Amino acid sequence: MSDMNHPIPFTEVHIDDSFWNDRLRTNRVVSLPYQYQQCKETGRIDAFKLQWQPGNGEAPHIFWDSDVAKWVEAASYSLSTHPDAELALQLEEVVALIASAQQPDGYLNTHFTQIDQEKRWANLQDAHELYCAGHLIEAAVAHFQATGKRILLEVACRYADYISTVFGREEGKIQGYCGHEEIELALVKLYRATRENRYLELSRFFVEERGQSPHIFKDPRDWRGNLGYYQAHAPVREQKEAVGHAVRAVYLYSAIADLAGEYNDPSLLAASETLWESVTKRKMYLTGGIGSTRVGEAFTKDYDLPNETAYCETCAAVGMVMWSHRLVQIDCDRRYADVMERALYNSVISGVSQDGIKFFYENPLASRGGHHRQPWFECVCCPSNLSRLLASLGNYIFSRTEDGLAVHLYLQSEVTQQSIAGASVQVKLETRYPWEGHIRLLVETDRSADFTLRLRIPEWCRSYEIRIGGKTIEALEEKGYALIHRTWSSGDAVELELDMPVEKIVSHPGVIMNQGRLALQRGPLVYCVEDANHKTDVFNLVLPGDAKLSSRWEQNLLGGIAVVEGKGLIRIPNANLYPRADEVEFEETELMAIPYYAWDNQKPGAMAVWMAAKTS
Amino acid sequence: MSDMNHPIPFTEVHIDDSFWNDRLRTNRVVSLPYQYQQCKETGRIDAFKLQWQPGNGEAPHIFWDSDVAKWVEAASYSLSTHPDAELALQLEEVVALIASAQQPDGYLNTHFTQIDQEKRWANLQDAHELYCAGHLIEAAVAHFQATGKRILLEVACRYADYISTVFGREEGKIQGYCGHEEIELALVKLYRATRENRYLELSRFFVEERGQSPHIFKDPRDWRGNLGYYQAHAPVREQKEAVGHAVRAVYLYSAIADLAGEYNDPSLLAASETLWESVTKRKMYLTGGIGSTRVGEAFTKDYDLPNETAYCETCAAVGMVMWSHRLVQIDCDRRYADVMERALYNSVISGVSQDGIKFFYENPLASRGGHHRQPWFECVCCPSNLSRLLASLGNYIFSRTEDGLAVHLYLQSEVTQQSIAGASVQVKLETRYPWEGHIRLLVETDRSADFTLRLRIPEWCRSYEIRIGGKTIEALEEKGYALIHRTWSSGDAVELELDMPVEKIVSHPGVIMNQGRLALQRGPLVYCVEDANHKTDVFNLVLPGDAKLSSRWEQNLLGGIAVVEGKGLIRIPNANLYPRADEVEFEETELMAIPYYAWDNQKPGAMAVWMAAKTS
Repeated sequence: MSDMNHPIPFTEVHIDDSFWNDRLRTNRVVSLPYQYQQCKETGRIDAFKLQWQPGNGEAPHIFWDSDVAKWVEAASYSLSTHPDAELALQLEEVVALIASAQQPDGYLNTHFTQIDQEKRWANLQDAHELYCAGHLIEAAVAHFQATGKRILLEVACRYADYISTVFGREEGKIQGYCGHEEIELALVKLYRATRENRYLELSRFFVEERGQSPHIFKDPRDWRGNLGYYQAHAPVREQKEAVGHAVRAVYLYSAIADLAGEYNDPSLLAASETLWESVTKRKMYLTGGIGSTRVGEAFTKDYDLPNETAYCETCAAVGMVMWSHRLVQIDCDRRYADVMERALYNSVISGVSQDGIKFFYENPLASRGGHHRQPWFECVCCPSNLSRLLASLGNYIFSRTEDGLAVHLYLQSEVTQQSIAGASVQVKLETRYPWEGHIRLLVETDRSADFTLRLRIPEWCRSYEIRIGGKTIEALEEKGYALIHRTWSSGDAVELELDMPVEKIVSHPGVIMNQGRLALQRGPLVYCVEDANHKTDVFNLVLPGDAKLSSRWEQNLLGGIAVVEGKGLIRIPNANLYPRADEVEFEETELMAIPYYAWDNQKPGAMAVWMAAKTS
Repeated sequence: MSDMNHPIPFTEVHIDDSFWNDRLRTNRVVSLPYQYQQCKETGRIDAFKLQWQPGNGEAPHIFWDSDVAKWVEAASYSLSTHPDAELALQLEEVVALIASAQQPDGYLNTHFTQIDQEKRWANLQDAHELYCAGHLIEAAVAHFQATGKRILLEVACRYADYISTVFGREEGKIQGYCGHEEIELALVKLYRATRENRYLELSRFFVEERGQSPHIFKDPRDWRGNLGYYQAHAPVREQKEAVGHAVRAVYLYSAIADLAGEYNDPSLLAASETLWESVTKRKMYLTGGIGSTRVGEAFTKDYDLPNETAYCETCAAVGMVMWSHRLVQIDCDRRYADVMERALYNSVISGVSQDGIKFFYENPLASRGGHHRQPWFECVCCPSNLSRLLASLGNYIFSRTEDGLAVHLYLQSEVTQQSIAGASVQVKLETRYPWEGHIRLLVETDRSADFTLRLRIPEWCRSYEIRIGGKTIEALEEKGYALIHRTWSSGDAVELELDMPVEKIVSHPGVIMNQGRLALQRGPLVYCVEDANHKTDVFNLVLPGDAKLSSRWEQNLLGGIAVVEGKGLIRIPNANLYPRADEVEFEETELMAIPYYAWDNQKPGAMAVWMAAKTS
């Protein structure tokens, strides 16, 4: 792991991309103010005034603090790239309010300070205290990095220092950890912001303590099934299969990856890779969504990936992006960036409506027409999770590598690095990705510099071409990245042409619910069919294996999308539940598929990612 | 409904059938003694001694009584057709013990007499008291009919009379009903055995009271979701969709059909028909199983019929046979008998192992290899439910109609009726059904008699021929029954030739989990593939829509079965979760399917009813 890469922070990346601009702007000017207003109106922000009394509105819930913290984190990111006086004012007010709620000993939790005071740390299994602390820490680091102000960072350090007096292996401390992972990865961020090793150590303590015997959690016999719900069924190095609550899981796995890198710990890296295989080879939806069941919001068995009841919580897809992004820093292998991209372009951005004020908590791959984005939720973790990811999207594009620069995602953007091989280097990436596979990278430097540019060749791409100065070159490929090593001069331009036809995709046969069914993908985008674009219920659509499909730009649909079109069949409906195959009749029809992320923005109706092949 | 038919009781039908003989014998000589022993060893029988004390073994559970009652019912049926001194002795002991547990006021319940005495009738919603009473009543009627002894019948009458002092619309009575339907249909049986109209009236009270406002049940906010779990969400005449716990539902629907017939009540019949359409057109598995989910053992949404997680409780399939059988008496339409047959030959008899001592509670349509029959269950409703059905199987074959005799099921058997059109008529049915479609009916009468023989032409049969005296006749068909009206003389023989090829079946496209998949059926038997008969995991099998399939008798497999064979494909396995369709490779293979009911009797492994069509 000596070759560990470092993500280039979004503050050094300027995105100006036709696919993302509107989306990011909506996040900034609609979703963030909307979430602020909701947090205000529901009492989540005022909870930090510590003036709640019975009868005085809804009592602060055990995870309210995390909703505000994620908004602070997202707002901080947004201000870093897009100054906004009103948002800045709101942010500083909220930050001051949070700081004011810190107790003399460093503790900070609006629920347990006002309600159940005597129960502080009494229910690690389900009370989410360290989870909320983790989100406050992430918010503090973001706020510090965005504004340079130390107020919230110091609150976070005091809180973390206090936590380290409560938890640990020393006599008199609680040798325990939180039922909902989050603080582990947050403490790594705090370490990276402060370089205070004790935060990294505390993170390692929480991660390594998890699942040790004797168990600090009671093994619940309710719907949660067992300690696996909390990923507390075994020490993390012994966990071979992704189990339990999917968001908790990927937050833990992200922290494991962080610690594997920071401590250069091959056993933690191996654990992360084993879990990665478990998730991405056997428990992940085509959209990059994870968590097959609403029961426990959890992973289930290998290949158990039902479509209509897919839980695929938006937060879990965000977590997949976080985890993948951490792994690709340690090992610049496209399998990580491929999944990061798959989750981001499909199950993550499906989480928000085009107008930015309605959200999916669940992102199923089929709907009979009753599943719609909602303005708000009792448990409202997803909207602000999505917003903080979008507001810091620049983080995920480039990495500094030992020998230069890696490009993981293709967004039209500029990145400037002061010192690559001794030169100040700017790379301008021009593209209409994901709609088109053409990518142009223009390098500007203050002097000639000898470095390697790594360009991810996505797994979805069967054939590509790289040209420099109009001449095709054969680049060495390493773990799915094309390596372009040369002495770069200002004005050098690399063109990457990714072939991006419509692909018909099938599932592993173990996914028995997808046997005999096809999905459509073009580039990183998974497609779906919606009732709105068809004269029949989409479940009557049949996609013959040999159907010819093509894509076409449609400016006036869903903000501008490439639709996928071709000849399909309609199975002529009748009421027979189990007809003979040879009695089913078909007629030809025009199929039109839209990107999955865009569904439920047209006339309400049924949606399907997987379509039937022809059975006769 | 003036043309209501009457089932010819199993005591007047002698079954001697190559498909059923072994099965019925195993039920009689293995399953029934085994269930007795289990009821004895677990304390269920001794609970009737009313000597349970804390510390003295497991406390009688609220539905233990029903397990013993169903055994009494099954044992009584068995003794009616197959005298057995040891079984008779056991039965009389158990009956005496049950009778001895009756309280002076008529109440009879081992749980509430020994435990929670003060809670008698306190929890109608969940305590199963009237449910247990219903099974005692069914047992009593069976015992009386089998032995002529009145001891248990009188117990049942006293209990029912006591219940009618507790429940009713009169001042001071409980205007309520049981959370688990059962007593409703039992009281109809008690009425038919005693001709005491008050039992029919009490049944009607329970059925008509159900779901009336104000609700006597609290609307639970737990996993049961709502009053629909108990079919108590609306008055029965207003219930348009089958909802809730599937066994409860079909027990209620059976009672509704009974009362519709007895009271000649078109509104109740309409309710039953509406619910019938809901179940059989939108909520029933190909095997006749019902109840899509383990959560609440319940129906879910229309067309939500997942295979691997199909609950399909054996009791629910038994209930489908019961309900269908009641409806076909009111309306001699093959749609009822078709479903009765479908459930019986597939989801019912799958419930017991070949050796008779292991049982399925759940009958899924796919398994990854981990689902196996069990010797016993905490909640052991299914084994004795299956046994009582098998022991009275003769009930389901023939009906007396206004104008003669209807044949619903084709078992090799003899039925004798003393007076059809003034003649004593015996019909001998000869067949190797369900393996072969040839059926011969030989009529013997003591004088010429003018009557109509109705022969069901199963929906699965596309073409058939009827011959009398070697000559093909064109029979009038009415509601799927061929009507043979003639003056019958002794020695007249009718031959019915049902074409029985292997059929490829698809699902309604709303069953999205079966899109692009095919199942195999031959005659009434649904087929499945098991790992044991293939060189690959069955989930890798692909059934091209044009595959040629045939059946072959295999004497040495699973007690003798017709296997279905043909050329299929193996999708060559690889680890890729979402490959491109055109990169999947196939090789030819021999497919061998076995009847669904017989699965999990070979080497343990995966099983599938629905197979993938070819996607490319």
